[in-house]
Parts: sequence; C-alpha cells; structure tokens
Amino acid sequence: MNELVPTHIEKNKKTGHTRIMKEINGGICAPNGFLASGIRCGIKANASKRDLALVFSQQPCTSAALFTSNLVQAASVIVSREHNRAGKIRALIANSGNANACTGQAGMEAARRMAEMAAEKLGISGEETAVASTGVIGVPMPLERIEAGMANLAAGLANDGGDAALEAIMTTDTRKKSAAIEFELPSQTEGQGALVRIGAMTKGSGMIHPNMATMICVITTDAAISANMLDKALRQAVNRSFNRLTVDGDMSTNDMALVMANGAAGNALIDGEGPVWETFALALEAVCITLTRAMARDGEGATHLITIKVSGAASEENAAVLARSVAGSSLVKAACFGADANWGRVLCALGYAGVPFKPEETSVEFSSTAGSIPVYKNGEVLPFSEEKAKTILLKEEIMINAVVGNGNGEATAWGCDLSYDYVKINGDYRS
Amino acid sequence: MNELVPTHIEKNKKTGHTRIMKEINGGICAPNGFLASGIRCGIKANASKRDLALVFSQQPCTSAALFTSNLVQAASVIVSREHNRAGKIRALIANSGNANACTGQAGMEAARRMAEMAAEKLGISGEETAVASTGVIGVPMPLERIEAGMANLAAGLANDGGDAALEAIMTTDTRKKSAAIEFELPSQTEGQGALVRIGAMTKGSGMIHPNMATMICVITTDAAISANMLDKALRQAVNRSFNRLTVDGDMSTNDMALVMANGAAGNALIDGEGPVWETFALALEAVCITLTRAMARDGEGATHLITIKVSGAASEENAAVLARSVAGSSLVKAACFGADANWGRVLCALGYAGVPFKPEETSVEFSSTAGSIPVYKNGEVLPFSEEKAKTILLKEEIMINAVVGNGNGEATAWGCDLSYDYVKINGDYRS
Repeated sequence: MNELVPTHIEKNKKTGHTRIMKEINGGICAPNGFLASGIRCGIKANASKRDLALVFSQQPCTSAALFTSNLVQAASVIVSREHNRAGKIRALIANSGNANACTGQAGMEAARRMAEMAAEKLGISGEETAVASTGVIGVPMPLERIEAGMANLAAGLANDGGDAALEAIMTTDTRKKSAAIEFELPSQTEGQGALVRIGAMTKGSGMIHPNMATMICVITTDAAISANMLDKALRQAVNRSFNRLTVDGDMSTNDMALVMANGAAGNALIDGEGPVWETFALALEAVCITLTRAMARDGEGATHLITIKVSGAASEENAAVLARSVAGSSLVKAACFGADANWGRVLCALGYAGVPFKPEETSVEFSSTAGSIPVYKNGEVLPFSEEKAKTILLKEEIMINAVVGNGNGEATAWGCDLSYDYVKINGDYRS
Repeated sequence: MNELVPTHIEKNKKTGHTRIMKEINGGICAPNGFLASGIRCGIKANASKRDLALVFSQQPCTSAALFTSNLVQAASVIVSREHNRAGKIRALIANSGNANACTGQAGMEAARRMAEMAAEKLGISGEETAVASTGVIGVPMPLERIEAGMANLAAGLANDGGDAALEAIMTTDTRKKSAAIEFELPSQTEGQGALVRIGAMTKGSGMIHPNMATMICVITTDAAISANMLDKALRQAVNRSFNRLTVDGDMSTNDMALVMANGAAGNALIDGEGPVWETFALALEAVCITLTRAMARDGEGATHLITIKVSGAASEENAAVLARSVAGSSLVKAACFGADANWGRVLCALGYAGVPFKPEETSVEFSSTAGSIPVYKNGEVLPFSEEKAKTILLKEEIMINAVVGNGNGEATAWGCDLSYDYVKINGDYRS
C-alpha cells in the first residue's frame, strides 16, 4: 500500500476540505461501478504470468487521456487518442508482453480489432473503448490469442478484479502500484456535498521520463465531472507528478494516462472551476504523486527512491526543470547508489539544466529518516561529517533539497539510483 | 595511436589539398616550437601519479578557446576565458586531482595565482597564460603544493614532454588520448605553400556530453593564423566532434578546448576564408574527431565505441540532434553492452529527440567489422538473424546507421555502452 504524500494533504487543507480525505483499499475498483479482470492469454513467454486486462464502468463515463509525446507512437496510442476525442471512454483493454509498436499497418489493424472485440463483448461502442499495449517493440501482435481469451476476460469482470488487471499490465515491474482515496467534495448547494472516490493503477519501471514514457496509468473515479474539467484536472496532476519522474531518461512509444469518471457517487456535476473542482484536482494530484513515487521506487534496478526538491527559483516551471535535471543525472544517480554525498554533481546538474538560477545563492542539503545534513551554502562548501552523510544516504528514501535563489518557484521531482541491476536488466531485455 | 577518420580525409580531398595529410608522432609537441612538461606535485592522493602539467610555445601565439556552458563554472574556466579575450594564450598550466570548482572566492584567487606563477616562471604576461583544473569538486586547491612544484615543472619543459603533460591531466581516463597530423596548406601566392602541423591531447571519460563537459583538450599548431580565423575553425571543429559526443549526459563545471597557434611553420598568415583556411579547418576537425572517438572508446566503463550516423534529415543540425539522442539513450547503451540488436530502442530515442523526421521512411542498420545487418526498413521490421546480429555487435566498435527520410541533413555522433563498471566507477568516486 502506498502512503499518500503528506504535503498534498496539507495543500488540500487550504481549501478546507481535506478532513476526510483518506486512503482506502480496492485500487481501480474502489470507486463505485468499476469492474476489472486480468487473465493469461499467452502473449508473454512466461506461462505463469497474466497478460491481458480489462477495466469497465457499468455506467457511461466522461474521460480524459494524455499520451506519449514520442514521435514514434504505438498503434494503441493512435487508436486510443482517436477514440478518446469524444471524451466518453468507459472501458480499457490492455495487454503486456507486446507493445504493438513499429508494427506498421498490421499493428494498426490489431489495435483497432482489440478495441472492437472488447466493445462487442461489453455491448458498448468502439469509441467508448481504449486500448493499451506494453512490452517488446516490433513484434506482430498475436491477435488470435487475445481473441481466444476474450470470453474468459469478460467473464472475469468483478469489483475485486483490480489486482488481476494490474498484474496483467506489468512487465519488468517488481511491485504492484495502485492507490485509492475517498474524500468529500464541498457542497456547491446545500445537501449536495458528496463522498467520492478515486482509484488508480500503473505499470512502469524503466523508460520512465517526463512526458510519461512506458507507463500505463488507469484512473477511475465515481465523481460526476465534465470531460473538459476532467481533462484540465488530469493535465495539472500529470504535470506535477508523472512528468516530474525520471528513471532513465528514455521515453517510450506507447503509454498513456487515462481517467474515467462515471458519476456513480451522485455529486452535482463538476462543470467549472471553483472550490469543488479544486478539491477534486488536488485529490487526483495526490493519487498521481503516490503512483509516481511508487514508480520511482520501482525504477529498474533501483535501490533508492530519490526526491529532489528545488525552491527559490524564478518560477515553478524553472524549479521543475532544475529538479528534473538533478533527478536525471547519471552521476547523481550513481552517487546515490554508492551512498556518496556528492553535492558537486548536484550543483553540476543544476548548472546544465538550461534555466537561470544563482549559483552564489545556492544551498544543498541531503536528508532521510536518519536526519539531514547541509553540505553547501550560498555557493560554498560546508564542512560536514562523511560518516553522518553515509548514514543518511544508506536509507532507502533519500531527499535532496536545493535552494537556488530567493524566488518563489518551487517544485519536486522524483527518481531513483543507477545500479548494477539497471544495466543487467537492460543489457538483454529481449531474450 | 589513434587512427585518423577516413571520411574526413576524403572530405578534405574535395579541396584538393589532402595528398600529404598524414598522422605523425609527438602529440602536442609535434608542431614546431611547443614544449611540455608533467610532474607530480602531490594534489592526487595516489603517490605514483603525475598531477601538474605545463604546455608552452617558445614563440608568441594567437589563440582560441571554448568553455563549458554549465552555469556553474570552475574558477579556472572563468580566469582562462578572461585571459583568452586578447587571443594570445601561449602557455597552459593544468592540474588533475582537484577541479577547483564550487570553491568560492578562495578558488578564484587560486586560479589567478596558478596563472601568475606559470607566467612569472616563463617570463610571459598573465594574459598569455591559461589555467585548467580537473578532479574533485568543492575541495580547496592546495596551492602551496603547486607553488613548491613550479621550479621542477618549468625545468622539465621539453619537446618530448607531451606524454608527461598528458598523464598529468588524466583522471579516470584509462588510455592516453593524443593525436598529431602534418599536412600541406595550398599556396595563396606562389612559393607560400607550407607544411604545417596540428597536435592535440585530451582528457575526459565520464561526464562527457555535447558542449564539452569534463574535458580538457589542448591543441597546438605551428600554422600562422589570425585569432579570429582560429576561433572560427575551432567552433566548427568542436561542433562536429566534441559536441557530438555523449558518455553519460552529464556536463561538467570545468573544461575547455584551447588551441594555440605559433606560426613557426612559416606559412603566410591565414587571415580570411578560402581554400587555405578550409584546409586548416578540416584538418583541425579531423584531429578533434580522432580525439572524440578516443574519448567515446574510453567512456567510463565502456566496452564498445558506438558511432551513430543519421542521414536523410531536414538539416545537419536536425541530424545531429537525432544522432545525439540515440547516443545518449541509456537503453540503447545498455543494449549495446548486451550485444542486443534492439532497434526498437533506437527508434524510440529518435522519436523523443524533439526534431521532426519521418518514422514511416525510417530505416535502421547495425554494422561492424563483422558485417552489417538491416533490421528496420521504411517503418517496418525486417526479419533478421539474431545470431548474425550478435556476431556484429560483439565487436568493440559498433555502427548504428539510421536513415530518417529523404532530406540532405547528415551527422555523426559518438558514444559508448553502459556497463556495470560505469556504475562501479561512479558509485563512489570521491573515496
């Protein structure tokens, strides 16, 4: 179970509506009306692993989705983007073991056919169905195996099927990554306040970089919200979470974040900005950050979750660029693997980020549950105990705190260390 | 001894002036009038390693230099940039073991003092002297050790001192990287054609990325050339060589490429564009490419030199961005370490490079001295023998050839694979 990030609960407190935001069980099936299923249909070589997932809302939905910015896009991305144009996706069929990318026209037909098969089985229209694929690139999709598995897949739909669906989209992931929360929307009009739920699951461990590479994130909610306002909330949440995650700097051809909202909670439709939308948006952001941290922790070969907080920048965007640059530095990542308080590499990565800041006003501090240690202050080295630094950096979760001037811009990015195992995992992934 | 790159000898042939371009011995001391020295003064912990170098031209020079674009800059970079403004650097003092970066005001004073000490010993002015430092960041420079070593350093100046100087600037480098060539400049006026020489040495293995990170490159030539035309030639050469090299994506705070020209060859001063300048510029480029390849081969932990050639792009600059993106992909690098013909990762890295190209007209081929194998053609996978691919990729030097459309833009980038040893070397560099 992933903890929710305290700072975001605090943030939410500003709106006065966080008193009952709490983590709940059930992942994507926690919101009312969502069913899921996951089976093995034979795409993955490993005969014990699930590889085909289905998520379905019993009620019609509004939807929003964001896709990879890679110029080379998988067939599933192209098809799902088309289908989501109407903003009413209520089902997702997803497979692991084959990315259906760089597979030409046959790949496009396979992706369309996957969506059709799911829609037919569920008795909904094609444009209500999204499709996602992850795995090896450039291998033809074994469509006949998916077809053969469809009856079982649909029959397995259940409101405790979230775990099976999650397993079926995992590749090199070593942990299941899901979250769900329940919170109260403030009432717009008397008596309209309502308890709503957001659930989510994600796969992704390697090839994770700002702009959501090789990630499939499925978010469900029983809030009633217009497709436009859902889209706006998703963009803000993704920008402050998945887009600030770096595992190895590579961006994939697949991958998307999809949110479906079915309104089963019975709240008054959220159709514009204001405190209700803000409460929903911050809750969505909190869920996305929880999954972002889980993905960083599960980065291929990772032994440390690294959180980089940059403050004092000229703007939030500048702070984000600086924080991501540190998160993406191979030298910083290798230093963290070695529990080496190498602040010089942090400075260096700030320096080449490409946005202005003040080196002479820059300070750096390392911290973890074992304590904190300032190592650099206003452009000069501080004497510090290497022993104490080591103790701090040996913890699984490490925080690097950099102040880069006296501006108001502040942002957090997440990453992981670079270990022998990263090289091992990626040295021969295909075999 | 580094081989010269055949393609650049061919290019040079277009001007009709390459018939006698040949590789010679002697490195930075190959051009007439240059002396060098390298000693141990006690900056490096290892008592058997040289750590202080001096390069000196017996005649006055014109000079050009390029420096790191990192916002955090070492004191040596700041001082050398100042001194080079007059374009008449004729001596360089350089140390390894301490980068003199992030060392505040004391660091600035140390860098100035290093240049002064060298200038005094050599009887030249401060602005004729550059200073370079490489090594650990944030540790005060032990100036007294340099001062104590100055007499020996100056006394050691000799025209066979290039190797000692090179050793004294090496850090995690595992190979000596130097080159020298001799070639004939075409005559501008009758009887003025002259044999000239270019020599060079470089250090750099980790933290190498476009824009010359953690690299010290010293180039000497006995050509007579104005500071302006030398600057122009250096920018072009660096843009096509060092700026297309990626080892780990990190850029350092130090580091520079310096070229000094003393005119000892007796050619008519090169003071404008035309075939004479072009011949010189292409020769300089050839030397820089030779050193670039040597640095890629010596990337920290590298077991393969990877050359990526992208053609068919809309422009040379676009092709360079695409080639560098492939060279910098951790997943491509790890695949090369595992001799895995993972063309999907190549496609993927092209796709997120950020410049337009045509995925549906893209083709990829792997090659080495063991042969070549096309694996992707016009947007679709080709069936290929994994066995043959493995044989090709097990060679030390690997070429990845990508055609991305039908434009005229073409560029080459260089990199190395990502190995266990990279992680090992960088996991605890400071201790």
